[in-house]
Amino acid sequence: MDGGTMKLEQLGEFALIDLIKQDTINKAESVVIGIGDDAAVLKPTPGSLQLVTTDMLVEKVHFDLSTSSAWQLGYKAIGVNLSDIAAMGGVPNHVVISIAVPKHLPVDFVVSLYDGMKEICREFGVNIVGGDTVSSPHGLVINVTVLGEVEPDKLQRRSGASAGELIVVTGTLGDSSCGLDLLMLGEWQNYKFASSLVTKHLMPRPQVLQGPQIATLGSTSMNDISDGLASEVNEIAHASSVGMRIYSHQIPLSPELQATAPMFGKTAVEYGLYGGEDYQLVFTITPDQFKVLAQVDIAARLTVVGEVTDQSLGVQLVTEDGCTSPLEAKGYNHFR
Amino acid sequence: MDGGTMKLEQLGEFALIDLIKQDTINKAESVVIGIGDDAAVLKPTPGSLQLVTTDMLVEKVHFDLSTSSAWQLGYKAIGVNLSDIAAMGGVPNHVVISIAVPKHLPVDFVVSLYDGMKEICREFGVNIVGGDTVSSPHGLVINVTVLGEVEPDKLQRRSGASAGELIVVTGTLGDSSCGLDLLMLGEWQNYKFASSLVTKHLMPRPQVLQGPQIATLGSTSMNDISDGLASEVNEIAHASSVGMRIYSHQIPLSPELQATAPMFGKTAVEYGLYGGEDYQLVFTITPDQFKVLAQVDIAARLTVVGEVTDQSLGVQLVTEDGCTSPLEAKGYNHFR
Repeated sequence: MDGGTMKLEQLGEFALIDLIKQDTINKAESVVIGIGDDAAVLKPTPGSLQLVTTDMLVEKVHFDLSTSSAWQLGYKAIGVNLSDIAAMGGVPNHVVISIAVPKHLPVDFVVSLYDGMKEICREFGVNIVGGDTVSSPHGLVINVTVLGEVEPDKLQRRSGASAGELIVVTGTLGDSSCGLDLLMLGEWQNYKFASSLVTKHLMPRPQVLQGPQIATLGSTSMNDISDGLASEVNEIAHASSVGMRIYSHQIPLSPELQATAPMFGKTAVEYGLYGGEDYQLVFTITPDQFKVLAQVDIAARLTVVGEVTDQSLGVQLVTEDGCTSPLEAKGYNHFR
Repeated sequence: MDGGTMKLEQLGEFALIDLIKQDTINKAESVVIGIGDDAAVLKPTPGSLQLVTTDMLVEKVHFDLSTSSAWQLGYKAIGVNLSDIAAMGGVPNHVVISIAVPKHLPVDFVVSLYDGMKEICREFGVNIVGGDTVSSPHGLVINVTVLGEVEPDKLQRRSGASAGELIVVTGTLGDSSCGLDLLMLGEWQNYKFASSLVTKHLMPRPQVLQGPQIATLGSTSMNDISDGLASEVNEIAHASSVGMRIYSHQIPLSPELQATAPMFGKTAVEYGLYGGEDYQLVFTITPDQFKVLAQVDIAARLTVVGEVTDQSLGVQLVTEDGCTSPLEAKGYNHFR
């Protein structure tokens, strides 16, 4: 019997761990013990602060195996956590991964899930140093914890924004959310442009290199855009005790999104403001420092979408014709 | 409406996080940012190695809410991870916690779960610095990741044992597993001694202080006993390329276990060898160094249960009458 048809209940936990633990180390100098003892043992970089973030992904809540391959799911599960480290201005070094898997799943599925995880780890020089593999009576559950580091003077807090600074985003916004709408619709293969939007939803590329570069070049606060731009700028405004003006016509929107959005009765700007899971970065920076940043090739499109104002002015959306209205944080709320 | 009857779907995710994030910092000097940004920001101790371990607990696989209270479950979920750090000779500093919770659960349940977590964190000076709270379409899932530190010369690997050393355990063994059998039986309240065994299963006390103390006093390898003594000594023997002799009549067994074991058609020694989840420590140490250790009050009973031998002799169980047989690792294997 080969791995293609073998079920987990036939392979067993320990043989599964043996299958998984190959090709997990991409930054060997920082690992003393990886997978295989009671805990992983790691060497911190002297003088750096340590970063840690964790995310749990639940089948039928965060992903659907009828629309995502195991490989894509693995890639994304790690990616969204790397994005959190980048948003602090930091560099991700290590991940530990727990999975609860239904016994009837084929071994191939789990191997492919880890192959997707290993691919993004290899891409960004991140080690897989431990985890837990358990059985699940219902759906698949994945938990990823990422450890990273940041030099103290590059640390990006949400609370660092000041009035007069610019609000800047990387990439284009709203694509992932429109891609999700296409997936929910089914038969998206029939639509022009759908493929690139769907890929941005299933395999968003975190701004792992850009986060620390932008931090080095003087950003004052940063978030990754997981819950939509409107939600993220409200978080920064709240933490920094400032107001914000976002110009709706400056939000970077892909041609694919602009062509597809009307199909769902929405404008591309709505996707850009409220659509989640783009995993681009939004940050604040002084106009002078932005001039410096704009000269450097950081392998990401940068777009000024607004400016930081006084707290008394609140968080406002300004349209091209000058109409101003409060910009509310509309993100996903679990349990609601 | 008070918290007692309110459901999570009425409270919402963000209000829940606000409820949880109180009283989470017990070692403030090592935290720059706790709960509330994209990632927690922590200060490592210069010169120390970093430890990380993670565990996922799934309802109906690892726990049953008909036999464990939310508070006990929270206490244990953290405890079993602290135990892994202790087994490396290290000190736990921080935890991040993910939970997937069915929407219909009362808010009180989740608050009580976190209260149990906070209690053990307070007891051992550990910070809760982050996490993820998501909804689950089926049962409760908890993932805990613990970060700890160890001085390089105190690090306990499984691979450090040498022939001629003693094999020593803390506490008594088998109690937790017999407690589980009592819980499965139901109506355990009718049995004398049951309460202490059941408590050892529901709220095992990890040897958090003892692990680093024993490491400082010269142990050469260490494991925590999560899968039963037989399994743990086989792991050390394998990693260290040594053999082991375990003397069955030297295994420390509580009077409660000895009185209760026959009810389940097992001997107390069988519980002691193969019963999991005691979260005591097993370690190896030279006879001379053990004399030193035995003089120090480490707030744990220490018992020599065997000795390290040459690899060619294998892992053996020796009974009081001198009968020798191979001691096989029988632990819990997920997916089987």
